[in-house]
Amino acid sequence: MLHIFVDPSQMQGDLLHVSGGDVNHIKNVLRLKPGDEISVRTGQDEREYRYGIEAFTDSEVICRLRFVKEADVELPVKVYLFQGLPKADKMDLIVQKAVELGAAQIIPVQMRRSIVKLDGAKKAKRTQRWQTIAEAAAKQSRRAVVPLVREPMSMEEAVRFAVQNTETRLLPYELQEEDGSTRELMEGIREGSSLSIFIGPEGGFEPGEVEMAREAGILPISLGRRILRTETAAMVVLSWLIYRFETGLA
Amino acid sequence: MLHIFVDPSQMQGDLLHVSGGDVNHIKNVLRLKPGDEISVRTGQDEREYRYGIEAFTDSEVICRLRFVKEADVELPVKVYLFQGLPKADKMDLIVQKAVELGAAQIIPVQMRRSIVKLDGAKKAKRTQRWQTIAEAAAKQSRRAVVPLVREPMSMEEAVRFAVQNTETRLLPYELQEEDGSTRELMEGIREGSSLSIFIGPEGGFEPGEVEMAREAGILPISLGRRILRTETAAMVVLSWLIYRFETGLA
Repeated sequence: MLHIFVDPSQMQGDLLHVSGGDVNHIKNVLRLKPGDEISVRTGQDEREYRYGIEAFTDSEVICRLRFVKEADVELPVKVYLFQGLPKADKMDLIVQKAVELGAAQIIPVQMRRSIVKLDGAKKAKRTQRWQTIAEAAAKQSRRAVVPLVREPMSMEEAVRFAVQNTETRLLPYELQEEDGSTRELMEGIREGSSLSIFIGPEGGFEPGEVEMAREAGILPISLGRRILRTETAAMVVLSWLIYRFETGLA
Repeated sequence: MLHIFVDPSQMQGDLLHVSGGDVNHIKNVLRLKPGDEISVRTGQDEREYRYGIEAFTDSEVICRLRFVKEADVELPVKVYLFQGLPKADKMDLIVQKAVELGAAQIIPVQMRRSIVKLDGAKKAKRTQRWQTIAEAAAKQSRRAVVPLVREPMSMEEAVRFAVQNTETRLLPYELQEEDGSTRELMEGIREGSSLSIFIGPEGGFEPGEVEMAREAGILPISLGRRILRTETAAMVVLSWLIYRFETGLA
């Protein structure tokens, strides 16, 4: 079944007016017909709306609501990923995978060892690009909400944001030995709570950054015995949350 | 410190003869000097050898053994990844990430919904390419051994191989609801044992393949509530093993 995101303003009573690129996709690529069902989300809550196609106009597909499904596909922990800006296209992969694995927000962070520096205009353009990738990944993985990609922050801003907005705050650090605290911190995360994850760029964190984070209550954890690339680290922590909260009986 | 892989034949008594591309890297890129230390592995066992540079010839770097370190960087479960052949370059990413996260062997599998079909000559060439990626990823992530990438098998061969060689055999399947069995199966994996993981290609498994696997004792598991891309699935299971075996106190 086709899954699309629409703006709530396109929904009027029981009718939905699909416009833009989705029209061509429905009419000419998938060649859907009146009566066919599509799955619709607004990306603003977890609901899935099922509509039946009713009619076609030149620029719109008119659909009628069949039913609304309260979804349960979101990770039960709200994860804010603070990702040290990596080189080149790596951030594209990170955004795609973080969305697939359930992150709630992605915040690129200009860290000391980030090679890429984004100025004003580039910042906005790149953020827009990542947001588009996040939307595509949300659609593909059947997320109920589209995660927000924020404009890059400095490390200081990121630490402040994490402290103000999240209850648990973790920072995978390759020099952290596992002394039992990683497992303990993971097991302490409660369903329904919020979590910040700080990931260093290719060159890792500078010790001063780890120190600053630790003083603000952002605690180092170990991701196992091998050296992970920057784009792999967030996937590991998100996978751990899936294991903790989406396996086993509720 | 520089980490390189050598063939055991390059080690003679206490001396090591470094040749090939590493020579230029040592002399002209890193500009190492006599007395500098390098880290050496053969990729055939978990040992790390530390050598001091002794002298340079035109084509070799001669080094003297300082000490041998018994390493403990390998995942304590031997993971065989049976990956349904994906499109284009996706297998490159899968090999890189699986090696980073600790897989022991990678076996591409020609599944029914695999779009790519590899014939004799191409099979060997691709396998060689993936093996090269595995070696680079092993070096980067400081693995003690270089995982083997086997030539693609058919699904039937893969099932037989898994049954003969591994104690636990799992198959992530998007139609599998988590009824508690995923967590139970994961917790049943013992340290020091061997595990097969079967991952479908982009289009997923055909129901007949899942049935054949199940009859052979390869059990379906759920990877959470969202739809994962083929290249993400193996990373999730490997991350779970890291959580189980490399966090917490031994």
